[in-house]
Amino acid sequence: MNPSTAMARVLVDELARCGLAEAVVAPGSRSTPLALALVAHPRVRVHVRIDERSAAFCALGLARASRRAVALVCTSGTAAANFHPAVMEADHAGVPLLVLTADRPPELRGTGANQTVDQIRLYGPAVRFFAEAGVPEPVPGMVAYWRSLACRAWAATGPDHPGPVHLNLAFRDPLVPDDGPGAPAWPEPLDGRGDGAPWFTGPAVPHEPEPVRAPAVERGVIVCGDGDYDPVPYLALSARTGWPLLAEPTSNVRRAEAASAYRELLANPGFARDHVPDLVVSVGRPGLSRQLMSYLRTARQHIAVGDPRHFADPVRTACQVVPAVAAPEGADPDTAWAASWRRADAAARAAVDRVLDAEEALSEPRLARDLAAQLPNGALLFAGSSMPIRDLDGAMDARCGVRIIGNRGVSGIDGTVSTAVGAALAHQADGGGPAYALLGDLAVLHDQNGLVIGPDEPRPDLAVMVVNNDGGGIFSGLEQAGHPDFERVFGTPHGVSMERVAAMADVGYTRLEWASDLPKALLGEGLRIIEVRTGRSDSAALRARIQQAVDRALGELGE
Amino acid sequence: MNPSTAMARVLVDELARCGLAEAVVAPGSRSTPLALALVAHPRVRVHVRIDERSAAFCALGLARASRRAVALVCTSGTAAANFHPAVMEADHAGVPLLVLTADRPPELRGTGANQTVDQIRLYGPAVRFFAEAGVPEPVPGMVAYWRSLACRAWAATGPDHPGPVHLNLAFRDPLVPDDGPGAPAWPEPLDGRGDGAPWFTGPAVPHEPEPVRAPAVERGVIVCGDGDYDPVPYLALSARTGWPLLAEPTSNVRRAEAASAYRELLANPGFARDHVPDLVVSVGRPGLSRQLMSYLRTARQHIAVGDPRHFADPVRTACQVVPAVAAPEGADPDTAWAASWRRADAAARAAVDRVLDAEEALSEPRLARDLAAQLPNGALLFAGSSMPIRDLDGAMDARCGVRIIGNRGVSGIDGTVSTAVGAALAHQADGGGPAYALLGDLAVLHDQNGLVIGPDEPRPDLAVMVVNNDGGGIFSGLEQAGHPDFERVFGTPHGVSMERVAAMADVGYTRLEWASDLPKALLGEGLRIIEVRTGRSDSAALRARIQQAVDRALGELGE
Repeated sequence: MNPSTAMARVLVDELARCGLAEAVVAPGSRSTPLALALVAHPRVRVHVRIDERSAAFCALGLARASRRAVALVCTSGTAAANFHPAVMEADHAGVPLLVLTADRPPELRGTGANQTVDQIRLYGPAVRFFAEAGVPEPVPGMVAYWRSLACRAWAATGPDHPGPVHLNLAFRDPLVPDDGPGAPAWPEPLDGRGDGAPWFTGPAVPHEPEPVRAPAVERGVIVCGDGDYDPVPYLALSARTGWPLLAEPTSNVRRAEAASAYRELLANPGFARDHVPDLVVSVGRPGLSRQLMSYLRTARQHIAVGDPRHFADPVRTACQVVPAVAAPEGADPDTAWAASWRRADAAARAAVDRVLDAEEALSEPRLARDLAAQLPNGALLFAGSSMPIRDLDGAMDARCGVRIIGNRGVSGIDGTVSTAVGAALAHQADGGGPAYALLGDLAVLHDQNGLVIGPDEPRPDLAVMVVNNDGGGIFSGLEQAGHPDFERVFGTPHGVSMERVAAMADVGYTRLEWASDLPKALLGEGLRIIEVRTGRSDSAALRARIQQAVDRALGELGE
Repeated sequence: MNPSTAMARVLVDELARCGLAEAVVAPGSRSTPLALALVAHPRVRVHVRIDERSAAFCALGLARASRRAVALVCTSGTAAANFHPAVMEADHAGVPLLVLTADRPPELRGTGANQTVDQIRLYGPAVRFFAEAGVPEPVPGMVAYWRSLACRAWAATGPDHPGPVHLNLAFRDPLVPDDGPGAPAWPEPLDGRGDGAPWFTGPAVPHEPEPVRAPAVERGVIVCGDGDYDPVPYLALSARTGWPLLAEPTSNVRRAEAASAYRELLANPGFARDHVPDLVVSVGRPGLSRQLMSYLRTARQHIAVGDPRHFADPVRTACQVVPAVAAPEGADPDTAWAASWRRADAAARAAVDRVLDAEEALSEPRLARDLAAQLPNGALLFAGSSMPIRDLDGAMDARCGVRIIGNRGVSGIDGTVSTAVGAALAHQADGGGPAYALLGDLAVLHDQNGLVIGPDEPRPDLAVMVVNNDGGGIFSGLEQAGHPDFERVFGTPHGVSMERVAAMADVGYTRLEWASDLPKALLGEGLRIIEVRTGRSDSAALRARIQQAVDRALGELGE
């Protein structure tokens, strides 16, 4: 067997022993040994994607939803650079991703050969582990090296600090299998360990940390930012202490106990002033609103749950980082502080709902609220990074039974369709329910290629709900809004019809106008676009009206 | 004036003094100071693009066609990683590109703040110069620093070894101009040098190298690979020595004197055996065919024109690298060697044309040949990296009066529409004629976003000719073609209609079937798609028939 084919098969076999179940492959010639070994493996599901950027985000989505490392394969050259955005997101969001870039052998590098660049440490500090594996050669010890390398790479994708890993794999011609009778024999057995075991195993479960007791204060709050962590300890902490739960949507902690209108509450200067916390306990990556950042700055004490080497603390207020947190002994949840938060949140929630219910036409915040409320149990929702996730944050009521994810590691506008597609594929492979994405028009346009899926590829059941306001809505709420060059440089209208985007990719299309039509729209199947047309300045004005209504409600409450 | 606005304006003013005329800006918040300074500058034309990858390739195209550095601006985070493929291409192709990535200030880095990644040396070894400029502060000396930095960055984009340069620019809030009466004064004048001069100037023209005389041999050949160099010395060398010119299309040396059917000649084993050269003089980056690579290996002596630090030599045969080459003294062009090449090339050319002319329906090679022949003088043609450039190489006749470019630095499939758009915009801004691109369907799909151009942006006059064979045509000619998983993994059919791609982007669409309709199709205006539908296996079979016809013609010739 030729060396490229032999070691590619060994690598894939070893990764499958470690647990590899999904791979995304972008077409190319140099990557032929890897692509064919993956397609041929019975335990690996392969997804072929033409655009490497979309391929990478699809792999990210698969890995994010399944919490298992996914292999991502491309040929040499700029192809590998197209993976860079998704590798960054995987790094910051802690998503296990196994990037396998094919490369030309060293003798072709730096010589002006085709599709040949310097791929060594291509992703810089964004990966947990990098190896330049060297060109496969038929010498004794090569099998142990490649199998051991596969296990090492797999281990480096998790479990304590999951993230991306990069193996650069140089292959020399021939690249196509030579399984015929005349093929040269390999000098040692290609087999792995007996019983299908990996070459080596590490601890299967991460160390369970000892919780640290929080100090006994009345005026505590729990801030749950983006992240894939167990919600139970925070729900329990809130139940034991009465501390309100301020939970961003992708924390998946916004259950019945959470303050669902916290965003509007904190934006009310009087409320924030009267509710300065003695203690903030934070977990995950909070970052959806300036009002939350400002509020964090007012805390007298801030305990962050996480690893001191890479926990999120965007306003640098944490004074203690703990691996896990428990309620103080003898905590009493029935405090004036808890009651004040509950009263204010109920009033704010009612005010938000009143404004949203006043119009039957689907506004951006109303779509976010109604969508989150009407998703069937078992559903997966992917939220776009710009306004969709913020509208969910501002408008969605507490609920359980759904999983909300987003690319909040770096919060890019890129790769969202592909991430949602990948996440839906993994969610449904694991027996999950239907999947939905809530995206802006720019995000959909940026990653139109995420919709382009070949005829023989697995297809997800995914409704891409597009809030189309013909440009970048988030800027209408920022300081840039008043500038004379605003519309061209920040508004960036494009005039692209979402119906035509759907037609390009040959996916279903529905336009939705009325809130009452949403339940029916959610019942569809397959990959499809559901468009809601809105206006950028109308939406900004509506968000301001919601805040005014909450401000009035708080005033009436005397808070 | 706030520091971010002040230093962004100083930077842009200084770059404009250096010669900056075009900038491509992707929308974002952190980059606001740069974006607004560029839009406000009277001597800089700005192009806004939503997709940063397309933005980067658009800038690459502008810079490639104009041979002037183009500024490229994005916000922080994954946005900057989306520039990576185009930065690689700029590196390998020697295209001057000034990448200005906005960044969060250091206090937000490594804290889990939004859209914050490690952007230091993001592009690794792919840039000629990198600087982390530090956060602008109103302290004396800051103006000289930023103006000097701008000149240094500009100088590093060229002229001896043009390429990409990366400035990472951290901006602290406020990001929006504060030109009102209450704005704080800057502690020193913001002005640059008098008379609009740059802060410093370097040598305006690169050193003119002394040519080295080639050895006096009869059996010499001149191989002109991809590159942006003056064709005259090679045309002169050929005229003085009788050495045949084997010129790839993007060398722009395939004029009347060149052997236009060299690709088929070298693929004929008998011809290659009988025409082993005593000397190859090469320039640029040859890399379009395996037969040329094999032929280079047979040369008894190989002189490469270039810089020994970064010349192209994919088969490592060069024994001498010279900055320029001149004909040997007393060379005689009327040799048996020259006559043999001319006779064979004429016979091969006629054979190629006979096969192509046998059918009126536009095949892939015929479209390439006829397009190259029928372009008006002054036209620009961008050729896609996969089969389009190879069909041009195999089928186009020698001609002058047009400029042919391609992304042959790394030969990626990515960013081709945007590069062609950028190149067309620059070509036409410089008074050039119409522009055309010859691309495959995968390349167009990969960079559909290159067609999405906002209503207030400059638009090119560009016909994108799409050879649509529903997948990756190049693989049908490679060893992979026989594999049972071929169609899914390498063929990658997608079924996307180019008419619908055109409709998505709201650009014109024509379908072309007959060779006789091509002249009329070339007359259109504006950005538009012209589709020619072909078959992958039919095209591979036709290329084989062309070669067989050439083989027969050479046999009849006794060569």
